[in-house]
Amino acid sequence: MLGTREVGVYGKETLESINERCSALAKELGIDLDIHQSNSESEIIDLIQAAPKSFQGIVINPGAYTHYSYAIRDAFAAVRLPAVEVHLSNIHAREEFRHTSVIAPVLVGQISGFQGESYLLGIRALVELIRNG
Amino acid sequence: MLGTREVGVYGKETLESINERCSALAKELGIDLDIHQSNSESEIIDLIQAAPKSFQGIVINPGAYTHYSYAIRDAFAAVRLPAVEVHLSNIHAREEFRHTSVIAPVLVGQISGFQGESYLLGIRALVELIRNG
Amino acid sequence: MLGTREVGVYGKETLESINERCSALAKELGIDLDIHQSNSESEIIDLIQAAPKSFQGIVINPGAYTHYSYAIRDAFAAVRLPAVEVHLSNIHAREEFRHTSVIAPVLVGQISGFQGESYLLGIRALVELIRNG
Amino acid sequence: MLGTREVGVYGKETLESINERCSALAKELGIDLDIHQSNSESEIIDLIQAAPKSFQGIVINPGAYTHYSYAIRDAFAAVRLPAVEVHLSNIHAREEFRHTSVIAPVLVGQISGFQGESYLLGIRALVELIRNG
Amino acid sequence: MLGTREVGVYGKETLESINERCSALAKELGIDLDIHQSNSESEIIDLIQAAPKSFQGIVINPGAYTHYSYAIRDAFAAVRLPAVEVHLSNIHAREEFRHTSVIAPVLVGQISGFQGESYLLGIRALVELIRNG
Amino acid sequence: MLGTREVGVYGKETLESINERCSALAKELGIDLDIHQSNSESEIIDLIQAAPKSFQGIVINPGAYTHYSYAIRDAFAAVRLPAVEVHLSNIHAREEFRHTSVIAPVLVGQISGFQGESYLLGIRALVELIRNG
Amino acid sequence: MLGTREVGVYGKETLESINERCSALAKELGIDLDIHQSNSESEIIDLIQAAPKSFQGIVINPGAYTHYSYAIRDAFAAVRLPAVEVHLSNIHAREEFRHTSVIAPVLVGQISGFQGESYLLGIRALVELIRNG
Amino acid sequence: MLGTREVGVYGKETLESINERCSALAKELGIDLDIHQSNSESEIIDLIQAAPKSFQGIVINPGAYTHYSYAIRDAFAAVRLPAVEVHLSNIHAREEFRHTSVIAPVLVGQISGFQGESYLLGIRALVELIRNG
Amino acid sequence: MLGTREVGVYGKETLESINERCSALAKELGIDLDIHQSNSESEIIDLIQAAPKSFQGIVINPGAYTHYSYAIRDAFAAVRLPAVEVHLSNIHAREEFRHTSVIAPVLVGQISGFQGESYLLGIRALVELIRNG
Amino acid sequence: MLGTREVGVYGKETLESINERCSALAKELGIDLDIHQSNSESEIIDLIQAAPKSFQGIVINPGAYTHYSYAIRDAFAAVRLPAVEVHLSNIHAREEFRHTSVIAPVLVGQISGFQGESYLLGIRALVELIRNG
Amino acid sequence: MLGTREVGVYGKETLESINERCSALAKELGIDLDIHQSNSESEIIDLIQAAPKSFQGIVINPGAYTHYSYAIRDAFAAVRLPAVEVHLSNIHAREEFRHTSVIAPVLVGQISGFQGESYLLGIRALVELIRNG
Amino acid sequence: MLGTREVGVYGKETLESINERCSALAKELGIDLDIHQSNSESEIIDLIQAAPKSFQGIVINPGAYTHYSYAIRDAFAAVRLPAVEVHLSNIHAREEFRHTSVIAPVLVGQISGFQGESYLLGIRALVELIRNG
Repeated sequence: MLGTREVGVYGKETLESINERCSALAKELGIDLDIHQSNSESEIIDLIQAAPKSFQGIVINPGAYTHYSYAIRDAFAAVRLPAVEVHLSNIHAREEFRHTSVIAPVLVGQISGFQGESYLLGIRALVELIRNG
Repeated sequence: MLGTREVGVYGKETLESINERCSALAKELGIDLDIHQSNSESEIIDLIQAAPKSFQGIVINPGAYTHYSYAIRDAFAAVRLPAVEVHLSNIHAREEFRHTSVIAPVLVGQISGFQGESYLLGIRALVELIRNG
Repeated sequence: MLGTREVGVYGKETLESINERCSALAKELGIDLDIHQSNSESEIIDLIQAAPKSFQGIVINPGAYTHYSYAIRDAFAAVRLPAVEVHLSNIHAREEFRHTSVIAPVLVGQISGFQGESYLLGIRALVELIRNG
Repeated sequence: MLGTREVGVYGKETLESINERCSALAKELGIDLDIHQSNSESEIIDLIQAAPKSFQGIVINPGAYTHYSYAIRDAFAAVRLPAVEVHLSNIHAREEFRHTSVIAPVLVGQISGFQGESYLLGIRALVELIRNG
Repeated sequence: MLGTREVGVYGKETLESINERCSALAKELGIDLDIHQSNSESEIIDLIQAAPKSFQGIVINPGAYTHYSYAIRDAFAAVRLPAVEVHLSNIHAREEFRHTSVIAPVLVGQISGFQGESYLLGIRALVELIRNG
Repeated sequence: MLGTREVGVYGKETLESINERCSALAKELGIDLDIHQSNSESEIIDLIQAAPKSFQGIVINPGAYTHYSYAIRDAFAAVRLPAVEVHLSNIHAREEFRHTSVIAPVLVGQISGFQGESYLLGIRALVELIRNG
Repeated sequence: MLGTREVGVYGKETLESINERCSALAKELGIDLDIHQSNSESEIIDLIQAAPKSFQGIVINPGAYTHYSYAIRDAFAAVRLPAVEVHLSNIHAREEFRHTSVIAPVLVGQISGFQGESYLLGIRALVELIRNG
Repeated sequence: MLGTREVGVYGKETLESINERCSALAKELGIDLDIHQSNSESEIIDLIQAAPKSFQGIVINPGAYTHYSYAIRDAFAAVRLPAVEVHLSNIHAREEFRHTSVIAPVLVGQISGFQGESYLLGIRALVELIRNG
Repeated sequence: MLGTREVGVYGKETLESINERCSALAKELGIDLDIHQSNSESEIIDLIQAAPKSFQGIVINPGAYTHYSYAIRDAFAAVRLPAVEVHLSNIHAREEFRHTSVIAPVLVGQISGFQGESYLLGIRALVELIRNG
Repeated sequence: MLGTREVGVYGKETLESINERCSALAKELGIDLDIHQSNSESEIIDLIQAAPKSFQGIVINPGAYTHYSYAIRDAFAAVRLPAVEVHLSNIHAREEFRHTSVIAPVLVGQISGFQGESYLLGIRALVELIRNG
Repeated sequence: MLGTREVGVYGKETLESINERCSALAKELGIDLDIHQSNSESEIIDLIQAAPKSFQGIVINPGAYTHYSYAIRDAFAAVRLPAVEVHLSNIHAREEFRHTSVIAPVLVGQISGFQGESYLLGIRALVELIRNG
Repeated sequence: MLGTREVGVYGKETLESINERCSALAKELGIDLDIHQSNSESEIIDLIQAAPKSFQGIVINPGAYTHYSYAIRDAFAAVRLPAVEVHLSNIHAREEFRHTSVIAPVLVGQISGFQGESYLLGIRALVELIRNG
């Protein structure tokens, strides 16, 4: 149904725990969920380009790529799947360079600052969007 | 439990519909919800300053004040209640001046782009935060 | 027919004199004219939001709000009544910060520098626009 | 009495029609009106420098020169005739570079956004200014 | 004699204590002192516009309005009463946006960083100025 | 008790008169006051570095060094004596480059615009701070 | 068929040689080619405005006007003939001010850096565009 | 003879068609052509570093990397093979961030805006350059 | 020997007087002097391009073109005759935009602020340069 | 003991020679040294994330990634191993964009400009730091 | 009569030679000339402050202080003696930071680019100014 | 052999300890070392200008002068002795204004962040450079 790409999560157990909570929410919402983690800009782009074949939407945490990867932006602009950008921390409260996302302008929206809960909110937002338009 | 301040919503019926959906969600989550709508920067500040007496958190859509009201920012910084900034539209996809929030840096986080659903996500995020820390 | 909002006029008698000249011109053009004066950003927004019920257009001198009130801008963008921004002084000849209007981009046009005559020109422009499209 | 310089008007018949309306207004106001059209920065400067001998004021649409011709600015600063800058379109609602006029700071004022009517308003403003000071 | 407007003071008892110390100093200096506190930009403007009828000077802490309220600036520029801007904290040692005051350029001077004492110094400065000019 | 460093005062007699008023105030407040005047950045730094041995605080008018001497800033940051920056003129009302102090961010506060009285206010502020701190 | 305007070519013989190569290519492609050279911004504008009557496209080297002539930009925007901007040198490898073209945003495209060959490539691009759309 | 690297082409069939047209042109010009497509910045760098062993020049469409990949720039600067940057769209007519290429300053030139034809023009330009210097 | 181009001189008699003083100095220095005055950017460019045939150097007052005419800059860069930029007023003491010359970087030097004397100093400087290298 | 990552070295033999000198220094200092070379941002990130398991510190030459790879910065911020940034050339003497490192703010320090010796100095600095704190 | 302050001259003999030529010119013009050379900002300030007692004008080459010494600027603003800024090299053709003088705005004018001759031109300009003023 | 200039070191004993370690290293490397400490920009310039007579290189910690002293920069540019800039702290991890050195562009390189060890690394780098070129 929709894919979650996690980049730059802070510490292993948290990642697993977030993944479990996301999977539980996916079950509750009756959707299929596919989870990927990668440090590689090009792998992320490949996943985005391949997504329309299997998924109806994408939840992505682009980590530091948020702030400079116009290549990821263009990948999203090309596939035109509904996508949501999520951040564990409140990027608007951190260093100046983190206040700007070069990717969010071509996505549906952005959720930032709720730790692991940001992923769950992103999944809910995306499912709501796909189901009720 | 928590207050919702809506500024600059687009069209009356939508506002009512969002309010109803928020109230329904509040019931589902077992919380008290108080809804305010105002065009006035100082009224919004008064509401924020009064909030700690009756509420545990705030969901706010500061509308255009998002981008210049340092007075609202300082009000939030002073009360130090957990608060979430929500936007109907994806502000990161609109005019340059809307990409920056002067308020978000002192809040918990920001949710932007999911139309009325942004309010519901904000309420969920705040309740989760208050309950599970 | 159309409303005139005057903010920050310099000296009382001038304001009265301008109002009289505006009323005389309204009579000459055969229109109804409603004049408001307020220091309050939220009152101005309330007036703009209420205008479509009674008026066909707005002539506004947003005073210093011209340069930072995105809230007034959004109020105009929402009502979509034809509106004209007028200034007593030539704002393009004053301090740097006065050269930019954050409101004019969503209005029909801007008239700046002709003292009280700016209001009369604004009324003429608006009536012409409404009558001949 | 006063000169009108039109640069970069959009389409011939419109230009003729505006000219006719300007001439009609000139008659109505009892003034002499001289109309010039030129693509040449230096011709415009020559006209400005020669104006004080025959005219009491200037209405000018400097077209794209508005945004970079410091030479036209200096010509106006030197002759010190009252002059009004007019624009067919609302330059404050177009590309960023059109928001700034390098010429307006040395003129009486600026009128922008009322199509051909901008010229008529400019003539009215100038005549009012010269007659009632 | 002179008015003190306090915006955004941090905590009630401090405000009362500062007010008492200000009143004591007023007595010591033999002046009348009127104290106002408001979150509202337009109320502050109204107070400034009304001040010349009853007062000889103004001490103001414009709080966050310091950094964007050109409307308050224009109110001061219009009344031309001697006025002093005071800040509890050292605004030059805080966030970048707090280093600039849009109001101070039209006032007599600025005092920043001495907590409640800033108000007392402002009153002394103003009285000295009015008496020895 | 505390030192006063005066740089760039305008005219000799004024300097003497200010010094006398400062000395008189010092007596009134029961403190020792040491006055230095220098055009030399390095002499000013030497005086700051030597101050903790003999003084409890510093009042300084860094003149034009205010706007670029990171060396004086670092000298203050190193000695960590309470210090107050004073200016004869209202630097916030002068050229753009005078609006920013590179020194004030590491001091207690700044007083600007009250002519010679700025020094007296600075001394009062510093004594108050050291005594009731 | 299409016109070539050359401004600021470096040295006469080169200009002649480029012209010959352009003419030869025109013959090879079976098109009519008209070549103009002018230092005058207004002459260039006149040529652009007159072009639609006789030509189907324009290849232009605006020389230094590339970087500031909004008047030439507006001339192209008005005629809406397909046009190609060419440069002998690689403007992106020269001074900062040469990296930006104010004209290219309203043209089909830009070719930069291939010496005289830039003109030939521009002609090929334009013919291809006009023939195959 | 020369390599073509395509990044971020829009739609598969177009890519194949462009490749076929490029191959046809290569035959016509009597050169060997090697075509690569990759989303990966490091793969592109590896290809550039390996190019001098087998090729005499490079035609590259760096896609979104154009605007931030200083690593690709440095790869080109190191190999010093003649290279041409091509773009399907007119990057100078799109978002502000696309107006600047960080790579073009170390290449021979840039061709932008002619859709698939941009590649053919790039190949022609490079062959001309290598053959006639 | 050398040419003087005067643009934007302030008042006729002054221009004549400066011309006379320049001619007198030319005689004193034993050189031929040719004086031109033009409002036209392209005429100035034509004169610069023609200069090497008859002159050994140029003294130019580019008036307002100083600040934006990259076309005049490129004309000087192409002819590579020694040239001196002169200004009647001290451009560094006027509006911000007049502090920068886009032409001076390709000339020998700049003399600014000495009224008509600036021309004489420019002639002296150029003659000294040509005679003694 | 510590790892050295070399990106973008200029020419093979130099790389080998630097590696030999680094290995010789490692022996002299009695440490284990692991050397990696990669063009890939994600490989570099993987190496940084894996480093704490086997190493006590990192010496890195991030090449062009120095200036934009916030992803490498975040990798260093996450592992919190002491790390030193080294550059063969003096980046502060090259193009403007090379003066800023987005990575150095989260490292121990930066060494720039000493050719291959920069690596040796980086190793010495890191060993000194780890041994003597 | 007037003082010449030389800062940062390049090589001793040149300095001596320039001094000799300046002295010769002084004799020719019948004025007294006093020459100082100093690396010290405060010494230069002391000399400027002392100048009005003995001199009628100042010719100064502030070397690198030109670009940041607001202290020297303020010294000139205070003494209000006519002064001329001279530079050996054409500062407008060098690094960006050398294009701006923070001192010239309070002087009579600036002469830049004529090597040692710049001093002679400065002396001539100053004498002319004082005599015919 | 080479000189070390220390400006703004933090605390006396550290300075002595660093000096001792530097002297010990000098002995180990078989070089003569001369150590100076000064708060004075002009003294530092004098030392740099005098250095070529007695030394082969300079290690300098310009303290806060690093960020604005173009005069020290020009002194180094004039003597053209190899020189190394060192900093106790990692200037790239501190305030924005400390990220830029105006001096480093004319030196061999920069070492920043290793406390007292920065000096030793600087000495090693300089000796290596002088001995092995």
